[in-house]
Amino acid sequence: MRRAADIEISLTPRPDGIPLQRWLYDEIRTAILSGRLTPGSRLPATRDLALRLKISRGTVLAVYAQLGAEGYIQGATGKGSFVAPELPDLPPRPVATGSGVAEPIGRNAIGTKYDAPAVVLSTRGKKLSMTPFSVPGRTLPAKAFRTNQPDVTAFPFDLWTRIASSRSRRLRPKFLTDGDARGYKPLREAIAGYLRSSRGITCSAEQVVLVGSVQQILDISARLLLDPGDQVWIEDPGYPGAHLIFAAAGAKIVDIPVDSNGIDVEVARNQAPNARLAYVTAGRQSPLGSVLALDRRLALLTWAHRHNAIVIEDDYDSEYRFEGAPLAAMKSLDEAGRVIYCGTFSKLLFPSLRISYAVLPDQLIAPFTTALSLTFRHVALIAQTTLHEFIAEGHFGRHVRRMRLLYAERAQALRKAADAHLAGLLEIPEITMGLDTPAFLPSDSDDKDVAHLAAQAGIESLPLSAYARTHPVQPGLLLGFAAVSPTEIESGVRTLARVLDKK
Amino acid sequence: MRRAADIEISLTPRPDGIPLQRWLYDEIRTAILSGRLTPGSRLPATRDLALRLKISRGTVLAVYAQLGAEGYIQGATGKGSFVAPELPDLPPRPVATGSGVAEPIGRNAIGTKYDAPAVVLSTRGKKLSMTPFSVPGRTLPAKAFRTNQPDVTAFPFDLWTRIASSRSRRLRPKFLTDGDARGYKPLREAIAGYLRSSRGITCSAEQVVLVGSVQQILDISARLLLDPGDQVWIEDPGYPGAHLIFAAAGAKIVDIPVDSNGIDVEVARNQAPNARLAYVTAGRQSPLGSVLALDRRLALLTWAHRHNAIVIEDDYDSEYRFEGAPLAAMKSLDEAGRVIYCGTFSKLLFPSLRISYAVLPDQLIAPFTTALSLTFRHVALIAQTTLHEFIAEGHFGRHVRRMRLLYAERAQALRKAADAHLAGLLEIPEITMGLDTPAFLPSDSDDKDVAHLAAQAGIESLPLSAYARTHPVQPGLLLGFAAVSPTEIESGVRTLARVLDKK
Repeated sequence: MRRAADIEISLTPRPDGIPLQRWLYDEIRTAILSGRLTPGSRLPATRDLALRLKISRGTVLAVYAQLGAEGYIQGATGKGSFVAPELPDLPPRPVATGSGVAEPIGRNAIGTKYDAPAVVLSTRGKKLSMTPFSVPGRTLPAKAFRTNQPDVTAFPFDLWTRIASSRSRRLRPKFLTDGDARGYKPLREAIAGYLRSSRGITCSAEQVVLVGSVQQILDISARLLLDPGDQVWIEDPGYPGAHLIFAAAGAKIVDIPVDSNGIDVEVARNQAPNARLAYVTAGRQSPLGSVLALDRRLALLTWAHRHNAIVIEDDYDSEYRFEGAPLAAMKSLDEAGRVIYCGTFSKLLFPSLRISYAVLPDQLIAPFTTALSLTFRHVALIAQTTLHEFIAEGHFGRHVRRMRLLYAERAQALRKAADAHLAGLLEIPEITMGLDTPAFLPSDSDDKDVAHLAAQAGIESLPLSAYARTHPVQPGLLLGFAAVSPTEIESGVRTLARVLDKK
Repeated sequence: MRRAADIEISLTPRPDGIPLQRWLYDEIRTAILSGRLTPGSRLPATRDLALRLKISRGTVLAVYAQLGAEGYIQGATGKGSFVAPELPDLPPRPVATGSGVAEPIGRNAIGTKYDAPAVVLSTRGKKLSMTPFSVPGRTLPAKAFRTNQPDVTAFPFDLWTRIASSRSRRLRPKFLTDGDARGYKPLREAIAGYLRSSRGITCSAEQVVLVGSVQQILDISARLLLDPGDQVWIEDPGYPGAHLIFAAAGAKIVDIPVDSNGIDVEVARNQAPNARLAYVTAGRQSPLGSVLALDRRLALLTWAHRHNAIVIEDDYDSEYRFEGAPLAAMKSLDEAGRVIYCGTFSKLLFPSLRISYAVLPDQLIAPFTTALSLTFRHVALIAQTTLHEFIAEGHFGRHVRRMRLLYAERAQALRKAADAHLAGLLEIPEITMGLDTPAFLPSDSDDKDVAHLAAQAGIESLPLSAYARTHPVQPGLLLGFAAVSPTEIESGVRTLARVLDKK
C-alpha cells in the first residue's frame, strides 16, 4: 500500500472569506468526486496533514468526521481513513462542448462546465411562466405617463416607520410564531370597517382574507373554481394579468366585448351561459375606464346566481374618484354570495408593501383559506400589524383623501395640457377617477408603433391594443398621470404632441 | 303625479359611526332595491328632503349625484329626480326558509336572508383546499413537545426592530415601488454567500429566488414541471405539505419507502423510472430523521440527469446539527442542474417572517421567476432589506450558532429524561440534529391513540402514522424539543411516561 503521505491531494489556495475547515472539506470532497482520490485509497493521517498544512489537528479531525458522516470516507481508529470503496456511479461526467452553439448551462463543483439537457416544462408550466409585470421591478423616478402606479414619493413613509417601530416594541413573541392563514384579525376588522364606510360593502371580518397580491386571489380562485376546459368570461380589451392566470389554469377564455357601460353581459350570456367564472373591473374598466352600469351589474349577479357561477370583482383603483364619494362596489349588491371582491393596498399605499385582500362569499371562506394555507401559508405578520395601526389611527383615510386631491389635480393638468396641445392628435375622454386614462388615436393609427416612438422620446405609455384579444379596440394609449407632477405632465404632453405631429 | 313629498322613503335611524351622506345613500338605494321606491317614481326635491331631515342641501345633492352616477336615479335640472324607469331584473329575491335544515348563507343588503345554492368547487379545487397547517396559527407558549418550531422567545426581536427602523429611515422612495420578482438583490447575494460557507452550495445570486414559503416553491414547481398524471416520487412516510401540493396539481403520487439511509432510490427507480419529479428531505428525513446517504444522493442525481427529471430538496432544518458543521446539502453535488433547493428563514429566525428561498437550476430561473411574478408578484421589499442587514451585520450567523447550542442542550435534556423515564415505553434514537425527533412505540401500539391520550394530558406530539401513506411505519410519536425549556422537557417526559404506563 502506498504511504498515505504520498497521496496527492492537490490543494488550491484558500479564497478570502472561506473558513479553513470549509476550504479543506471542499478540497478533499472535490478530489474524491473528481476521481483524483480513488475509491478505497487511503487519506493522509490527520496528524501528517495538519503538519503539512500548518493547521491544527482538530480542524483536520473535524473535516474527516464530516466527510465520514456524509459517506465519502470511512475509517477505523488506528487504521486511518479511506475513500469509501463503494462509491456509487458518480453523477454524469463533464462533456466537452465544442460547438459553441448550445451554451452549456450547468457549472459543476469541480469547475468545468458540461452540457445539461434542457429542463422540460409541463404544458401548463409553459403557460404559467408568462407575466405581464416587469421582473426586475420598476425604477424611480417615474416618467410621464407611467401607468398603474401611485405617487410613492408622497407616501408618509417616516410616519409608517415610526408606527412600525413603536408597534414592534410592543409585540410579544406570539407575533413571531405562525400567524392566522386568514390574516391578522384586527386588520381584517379594520378592512371590513373601511369597506362598509367607503365601498358600500357590508361584510364581516370573517369574509376578509389577506393575501400577497390580487394575482394570488386570481390564481387560487381559478384553481378552486375551474377545471381545465371550464369557461371564464373576461373583458376584451382587459387586464392581461387576469387572462394569463386563467389560461395557465387551463380555462377556456371567453372574450366579452366592452363598451362605455363596461362588459356586455348580454353578449356574454348568449355566448357562454354556462361559464363558471366572470372577471370584471366593474369600478373602472381596465383599460377603457368605463364604469359597469347598474343594469349590467344586476344582470351579472342574476346570471351568477342562476348558473351557480362566481364573479371576481377586481377593484384596483376606483377609490380615487375625483368628484363625490367613490361609487359603491358591485360586491355591495351581492346578496346571493356570488362575488369575490379583490382589494389592494398597492395602489392606496405603496406597491412594495404587497398586501391585498379578498372579500369572499361565506361558502368560499373555508376552501379559499385552506388553499392559501397549503400553497402559501400567510402574509407576514408584522407588516399586517403596522398596517392595522396605520388604518386604526386614521392615517390611511387621510392619506387616501390627500392622494385623491393630488391625483385630481394631476388629471386636471393632463386635461388642460391635452386641450392645449393634443387636439386632433390624441383624444382624452373626461377623467373622473383612477390613476390613468385611455387616450384615443385616429382609427387608422398603429398604437404599438406610436407607443414605441413615444418611448424613444422618453415617454412611457401602453398601447391599448396590448389589452385587446379578439375584439377590435380603437387604437390609443393608456396614460398614467398619478405618479408624476403637473409640470412633468405638461412637458410630457408637449413631447407626445411632437411625436404625434411628426408621424 | 303624486307630489314628491308624499313619497314614502322610510328612513331608519342613522347608526353610530356611519357618516350622514353614506347613511342617506344606503337608505335610498335600499328603498329602490327593495321595491319600496318603484321604477319611475319621483324622489323628493333635494331642498324638501334636506329640510325634512334637517341636513344640508349639499349632502342631499351629493347623494343624488352618486345615485345618478350609479344608474339608480335619473334627473333633469328643474324637473326633479326619478327612480330609473328601466331598472333591470333585480337580483333574486329573498326566499323564506322554513326547514331549518339548510342554514341560509347569503345575507342581502336589505337585511333579510335567503338561500344561496352551494358554491361548486372544481375537482382540483377540492384537493387544493386541504392544508396540513393550523389555519388560526399557533398559540404561545409552546407546550412540550411542539414539533417543527424554533424557540421564538429566544429571537433577538429588539435588535431586529432596531435594524428595521434604522434601515427604514435610510430607505428612499425607490423601495416603495414594485420590487424585483426574484427578490432584493443584496439579500440574494447574502443568501448565496451563506449557502457557500454553510451548506456547501456553490451558487450565484441569480439562482436564488425569494418566496413567501417553501409551500410556494412546491406549488409553483409542481405546476411548472408536472402535467396532470405525471409521476412524482415522495418519501413515505413523508411531509404531508408536499404530497398535498402534488396531489392538488393532479400528479400521480408514487410513495417510496424510507429507511435509515433515507428514501430508497433503487426502489423508486424500479417502480417509476419515468417520474418527472422527486421530493426529498435529504438533510434530515421528515419525520424519521435519517440522512440521505451519499450513494443514494448520487444515484438520485444520476437518475434525474438521465431521465431529465427534477429533484426538490427541502432543507427545512438541517442547519441545526449539534456536533460538527452541518452536512453539505445534496444541492452541493448538483453538477447537472437538476436540483431545486428549498431553504427557509421560518425555522432559523421566526415563522411569521414568512421569507423562504429557492436555489434554482439555471434553466429554471426564468420560468420560475415569471410564474412567481404572475401568481404572486414578489416578497414584500422592506422586510427583505431588514433581513439583508441582519445577515450582513453578522447577527444571522450568531443567532443560528446560539440556537444550535440551545437546541443541542434541549436534545440532551430530552435524551436524559427519556433514559430515566421512558425505557421500555418509548425509544428515542440518537438525536444529532434538527428541531424534533421520532420516538418509537412498541410495534403493536396505535400511535394515534397514544398521541390522543398524550394531548389529553397536555402533551403535544404527532403520531408517525400521520406521515405514512402506503408503506407501514413503526408506530411512534414525533416530539419537538426546540421550542420548550429543559425543565418543561423533563416534566413533559414524566407526563408522557405516566400516559404510556397506564395504557
